[in-house]
Amino acid sequence: MSAPKKVVLAYSGGLDTSIILKWLQTEYGCEVVTFTADLGQGEELEPARKKAELLGIKPENIFIEDVREEFVRDFVFPMFRANAVYEGLYLLGTSIARPLISKRLVEIAQETGADAVAHGATGKGNDQVRFELSAYALNPEIQVIAPWREWDLSSRTKLLQFAEEHQIPIAKDKRGEAPFSVDANLLHTSSEGKVLEDPAEAAPDYVYQRTVHPEDAPDTPEFVEITFAKGDPVAINGEAMSPAAILTKLNELGGKHGVGRLDLVEGRYVGMKSRGIYETPGGTLLLEAHRGIESITLDRGAAHLKDELMPRYAELIYNGYWFSPEREMLQAAIDHSQTRVNGTVRLKLYKGLAQTVGRWSEDSLYSEQHVTFEDDAGAYDQKDAAGFIKINALRLKLLAARDRRG
Amino acid sequence: MSAPKKVVLAYSGGLDTSIILKWLQTEYGCEVVTFTADLGQGEELEPARKKAELLGIKPENIFIEDVREEFVRDFVFPMFRANAVYEGLYLLGTSIARPLISKRLVEIAQETGADAVAHGATGKGNDQVRFELSAYALNPEIQVIAPWREWDLSSRTKLLQFAEEHQIPIAKDKRGEAPFSVDANLLHTSSEGKVLEDPAEAAPDYVYQRTVHPEDAPDTPEFVEITFAKGDPVAINGEAMSPAAILTKLNELGGKHGVGRLDLVEGRYVGMKSRGIYETPGGTLLLEAHRGIESITLDRGAAHLKDELMPRYAELIYNGYWFSPEREMLQAAIDHSQTRVNGTVRLKLYKGLAQTVGRWSEDSLYSEQHVTFEDDAGAYDQKDAAGFIKINALRLKLLAARDRRG
Amino acid sequence: MSAPKKVVLAYSGGLDTSIILKWLQTEYGCEVVTFTADLGQGEELEPARKKAELLGIKPENIFIEDVREEFVRDFVFPMFRANAVYEGLYLLGTSIARPLISKRLVEIAQETGADAVAHGATGKGNDQVRFELSAYALNPEIQVIAPWREWDLSSRTKLLQFAEEHQIPIAKDKRGEAPFSVDANLLHTSSEGKVLEDPAEAAPDYVYQRTVHPEDAPDTPEFVEITFAKGDPVAINGEAMSPAAILTKLNELGGKHGVGRLDLVEGRYVGMKSRGIYETPGGTLLLEAHRGIESITLDRGAAHLKDELMPRYAELIYNGYWFSPEREMLQAAIDHSQTRVNGTVRLKLYKGLAQTVGRWSEDSLYSEQHVTFEDDAGAYDQKDAAGFIKINALRLKLLAARDRRG
Amino acid sequence: MSAPKKVVLAYSGGLDTSIILKWLQTEYGCEVVTFTADLGQGEELEPARKKAELLGIKPENIFIEDVREEFVRDFVFPMFRANAVYEGLYLLGTSIARPLISKRLVEIAQETGADAVAHGATGKGNDQVRFELSAYALNPEIQVIAPWREWDLSSRTKLLQFAEEHQIPIAKDKRGEAPFSVDANLLHTSSEGKVLEDPAEAAPDYVYQRTVHPEDAPDTPEFVEITFAKGDPVAINGEAMSPAAILTKLNELGGKHGVGRLDLVEGRYVGMKSRGIYETPGGTLLLEAHRGIESITLDRGAAHLKDELMPRYAELIYNGYWFSPEREMLQAAIDHSQTRVNGTVRLKLYKGLAQTVGRWSEDSLYSEQHVTFEDDAGAYDQKDAAGFIKINALRLKLLAARDRRG
Repeated sequence: MSAPKKVVLAYSGGLDTSIILKWLQTEYGCEVVTFTADLGQGEELEPARKKAELLGIKPENIFIEDVREEFVRDFVFPMFRANAVYEGLYLLGTSIARPLISKRLVEIAQETGADAVAHGATGKGNDQVRFELSAYALNPEIQVIAPWREWDLSSRTKLLQFAEEHQIPIAKDKRGEAPFSVDANLLHTSSEGKVLEDPAEAAPDYVYQRTVHPEDAPDTPEFVEITFAKGDPVAINGEAMSPAAILTKLNELGGKHGVGRLDLVEGRYVGMKSRGIYETPGGTLLLEAHRGIESITLDRGAAHLKDELMPRYAELIYNGYWFSPEREMLQAAIDHSQTRVNGTVRLKLYKGLAQTVGRWSEDSLYSEQHVTFEDDAGAYDQKDAAGFIKINALRLKLLAARDRRG
Repeated sequence: MSAPKKVVLAYSGGLDTSIILKWLQTEYGCEVVTFTADLGQGEELEPARKKAELLGIKPENIFIEDVREEFVRDFVFPMFRANAVYEGLYLLGTSIARPLISKRLVEIAQETGADAVAHGATGKGNDQVRFELSAYALNPEIQVIAPWREWDLSSRTKLLQFAEEHQIPIAKDKRGEAPFSVDANLLHTSSEGKVLEDPAEAAPDYVYQRTVHPEDAPDTPEFVEITFAKGDPVAINGEAMSPAAILTKLNELGGKHGVGRLDLVEGRYVGMKSRGIYETPGGTLLLEAHRGIESITLDRGAAHLKDELMPRYAELIYNGYWFSPEREMLQAAIDHSQTRVNGTVRLKLYKGLAQTVGRWSEDSLYSEQHVTFEDDAGAYDQKDAAGFIKINALRLKLLAARDRRG
Repeated sequence: MSAPKKVVLAYSGGLDTSIILKWLQTEYGCEVVTFTADLGQGEELEPARKKAELLGIKPENIFIEDVREEFVRDFVFPMFRANAVYEGLYLLGTSIARPLISKRLVEIAQETGADAVAHGATGKGNDQVRFELSAYALNPEIQVIAPWREWDLSSRTKLLQFAEEHQIPIAKDKRGEAPFSVDANLLHTSSEGKVLEDPAEAAPDYVYQRTVHPEDAPDTPEFVEITFAKGDPVAINGEAMSPAAILTKLNELGGKHGVGRLDLVEGRYVGMKSRGIYETPGGTLLLEAHRGIESITLDRGAAHLKDELMPRYAELIYNGYWFSPEREMLQAAIDHSQTRVNGTVRLKLYKGLAQTVGRWSEDSLYSEQHVTFEDDAGAYDQKDAAGFIKINALRLKLLAARDRRG
Repeated sequence: MSAPKKVVLAYSGGLDTSIILKWLQTEYGCEVVTFTADLGQGEELEPARKKAELLGIKPENIFIEDVREEFVRDFVFPMFRANAVYEGLYLLGTSIARPLISKRLVEIAQETGADAVAHGATGKGNDQVRFELSAYALNPEIQVIAPWREWDLSSRTKLLQFAEEHQIPIAKDKRGEAPFSVDANLLHTSSEGKVLEDPAEAAPDYVYQRTVHPEDAPDTPEFVEITFAKGDPVAINGEAMSPAAILTKLNELGGKHGVGRLDLVEGRYVGMKSRGIYETPGGTLLLEAHRGIESITLDRGAAHLKDELMPRYAELIYNGYWFSPEREMLQAAIDHSQTRVNGTVRLKLYKGLAQTVGRWSEDSLYSEQHVTFEDDAGAYDQKDAAGFIKINALRLKLLAARDRRG
């Protein structure tokens, strides 16, 4: 591996990635290109431009982009078509953002003639894996630099010292260490580390940033109707919106009612368990509503196959294999199932709960005529059930007869 | 199939199974044995004895049993070890009770020399399948009689007429038709049919019987600690209890806080979709807590395999294959994983929500030393992660290089 | 179910389906349309036309079609993309032909205004299920008539008597009963029943019809090269051919060398086990070659996912669910994987064996540079493997440390 | 990681592991313990003792053991219960031997107070992973040394030079490089590398070592009967034998008839594809026979579940996760299914082919009474099949009706 000449850095504008920026310049003597994306994390992007300029990045090497629509349309929604949850609970809010960032890093490297990309993830987490597998899958020649695994800035003190030595401005509130670490995008906010490291201890209230406490949520329920087309939400309360606008609106609704908090210990791909606090207000509504609309429009055979494939699919995303043939194969199967997943679901939001209370669709497979306790006018012949059971029982009877033989 | 001489009937003491009892006597001229089980449905059993006697059943042919401990210990708890949910949401409260009833019916048939068993499930539902597959799997020679599939009492009027003709007492409130149909046991209450048949319409408040409305639940949260041993709950708030006592207590806690309501459209095994309202207060707490304790005590490899096997396992139970080799194989795998699933989970209950807020265990796999953002004293070498990623990326790089070749 | 007015019958021209034809006319007084397909079973079709005319079928109601290309292109090849084998061994030769026949039956019903279709499969086998599920999936209003389940012609004597009464010509060799039952199409010949019913006894030599005895096969091996494009074979020994021509050629080659015999006891969907003798010469070559070309062109992640999905896919086809959403979902996943499955495989055929001895492709993922025992010029850094192992081992080490704690 | 003080080396007595032995002594100045196992590789073990002594190993530090029975009983047979094949074809002959070697290395380290183990696998293959994951899973404190990943003896010349410098005797035929690399044990012989590196080229005849060329095999078939108890073979042609004796005998029979050759390109866990020539004569017979006995004794539900779990199980073994909770979970499920897998299978061996021609068992589920084309005396009511199909078709009909609505 030769030294990189030009590196595209995933740059937030914060202290840590500013230090990385400078470290890349000094360590490798290489040109740095910055990429700052608006994924809906709720921060201004322009300060990042100024900071990059201040650190000597040429204007043409500063890339600042709003990728929220692409994020939701091409990453979040396809994932929700699968009802993906990791380890039964986690909605994969961090995992799903990484491949998009890597994709843009690699594309910008291509545009600017860079031979490397760099990210600010540590060597203990999943994000390094997600960034790098995505980058390699998109450009097998690219070099990936992960400063946290390379440098010797192993303590907060050393980092601050490096910053001071290199005239990197340090915001006052960054002098001390943050009490926990945060990642955010339009889908979720995650918090981990420090005060959260003991999984026996409840997370302090101040950790939560995007959802009100259920106790502080409105005392009256609110109802929301989400309309789907081909498995994706397309309207809220009858109003058609863009993907990012929909997720933004769902976040607002969910956040207001304290919906979408999760306190989880999860198994990282790198082998250790970690504890995270996740807030996914809009995603929680979306998952509930998507299951609701599938419940009337998806055939049982398709639905059960989806359920069986889901854990693998979620694991692939969690582990960083978004750009892999197996994730794409599963996506092809899942997407095939969504053609008629159209219709509307009505949710009740109240004090942290989001529950389906009604669903309807032009494409419904629900047949009141068949299911009714009333006279069904011959739609269903109960005698058929006798044969159905007898034939299904045959192998069990042969087995029981064998087992009785001794 | 010859005419049965002696039939063991699953008898609730209610109007419908009383009619069945009489119908069996008149249709087949056979001796009837009644089996009435206390599965925690919350009804007195002694009236069933009186009613059976009134209908001419000999005392020695009346079996009334409290099977709650067996139900929870041998059916409910093994199922919860798997974190089983059907179609992502349903906790299988009705499904899991059927095999036990069939098991006792078949055993009583053996004891009393009966050649048939009978149940009161209709020809449209899943319960007929569950009853009958279980019965055949336990005794391949047994005959199963399902009067609802055989007789011509196809309307309420005809049923009542039959009852009157045969001096079957009709409770006043049974004259009219119930607005929906109910099944209950210690794990859940399900309601379906009639007023619930339109899945677009919210279920009326009066349908819910076992849980308070979240809006009416206490305004302050309550915390509960559930202790597990080998994957099963063994104590609540530090107090050891029997399986049925634990589930009873969890039901009380969950019900008080409005936890465990579910409004679902599900795919029946017999091919149609149906809408049900389920209340599973204790089970909902149990599932959350079991996932919580697994999150720190179960290895990722085991946990993910469990998650992949679960939908199939749940489907088998839903479809009535509790007594099948494949369910038993999956159970063997699941049970193998639970040896060290010991420890305690703390849940917060509030207005319909049950959320894990802490978990601890002597058998925890969580290693603060490994995961810490602080100095880990060499427990984990971040450089290893570089090799981990490189090797995992190799196939993706070869693939990308191939795809670039065109 | 009202009586059918016009029925499309899957008609072979043989004695059994001629009896069915006449029985439909007499039993239901309905008009009969015959459909006779050349699926490569190796029989002349024109005699079927004459026989149908003789039995009073109007010329415009006689449909005789060569569907071999459609059969291989749209059914056999897609199935082989999945490397489908049922219960580890059976290449699904009968199963895959049924959906195509049903599809044409339903289409012809539509064209001719028929309200029913009929087939000659018995009530004990899988074929009835395959025919009927396919028909219902394609036209939910269609009526399906299965005379073997309905009539009282329960013995050979009664059948022949019926034939004689209705002037159905009986070929001399059909007077006695066949020593076993046969189904054939371009993919395979299956034999079952009668002399084959004891699974402990070897099948008599005369059962085999399409392959020479390995002992009688040539004493020198023959080599054949099969070229694939997108997972389907497109050329043999460099010569491009149509799908049916390829399968025909492979059958010839395999049959000559005694390849593709299988003596199997299988689990039928209707619950019993049955013993069959299958000859699938061309299919056996195709499976081996397809695995061979995938071995160099398919990524490990895709290949392993395919292997995991395959048993379910094969089961769906065996059970008759070709036209189901879940089979289509799996097909979408499988087909997605085949885009670059291009190249050539060289097989050695000898005395019943078909073995891959070489494979090459423009799209190969095999990298001699990486795998070589020689100097790899830095393509692979062995040190990476250390990190890979360490990280993969971490969870196992944490587990072992926990288990040591007692 | 501190320097090891005492290392247990997997020592074959050959040149490479002798060099490793000396290198460990010189590089780390540590005491070396040698472990040489007879896994059925067909080499004398005593020369290894002499050689170890010559290289200065103390007698009490030389461990030489015949582990063939343990290997077959506790590793090979459990794996064959699963019908495990990797990527559809590979019988995992190398993979399954590694965990046993690691187990003994770790145990000997415990006995001798060693703090490390060492193996002679290179950094490009799977074996390093298998050795090390097993070792770490059994002792989380153990250090594993893989000299091939550490040293700079990167060419044959350097290796020989090192050997000469350290007075390691070099057999004449080891001066030149072997034309390919070999691994062998009682289950198989694998050959790879060098002359085999072009997957387009057929393997030269001289590569095969354990099986005759099919062309040279006897011109008359031989029949063999294998008897199983609980899924494991226990007798051949009626003669009861120990596990290792059975596999030895099957190897002899298979080898004589040219059975069990495989020319494969496989996906390694470390990401590259490699080509191997495998000879597994006895294992090939065993797999065929095990499938044969399962075909009559295993219920369809159990059999299909096994088939679905198998690819994952095989992948786990291939990747080195024998000692993992998920492999053990799958094993628990598989073993549960084998309780009644008893009986005898008759195989025909001829010119490379091994085919089941008969199978019988006291525990057979095959019911001639049910399957017969003849009168079944009411064992099976064909009318039941109509109901079975109707109910299974219902969801497909509802789907078709929906799709027709547009």
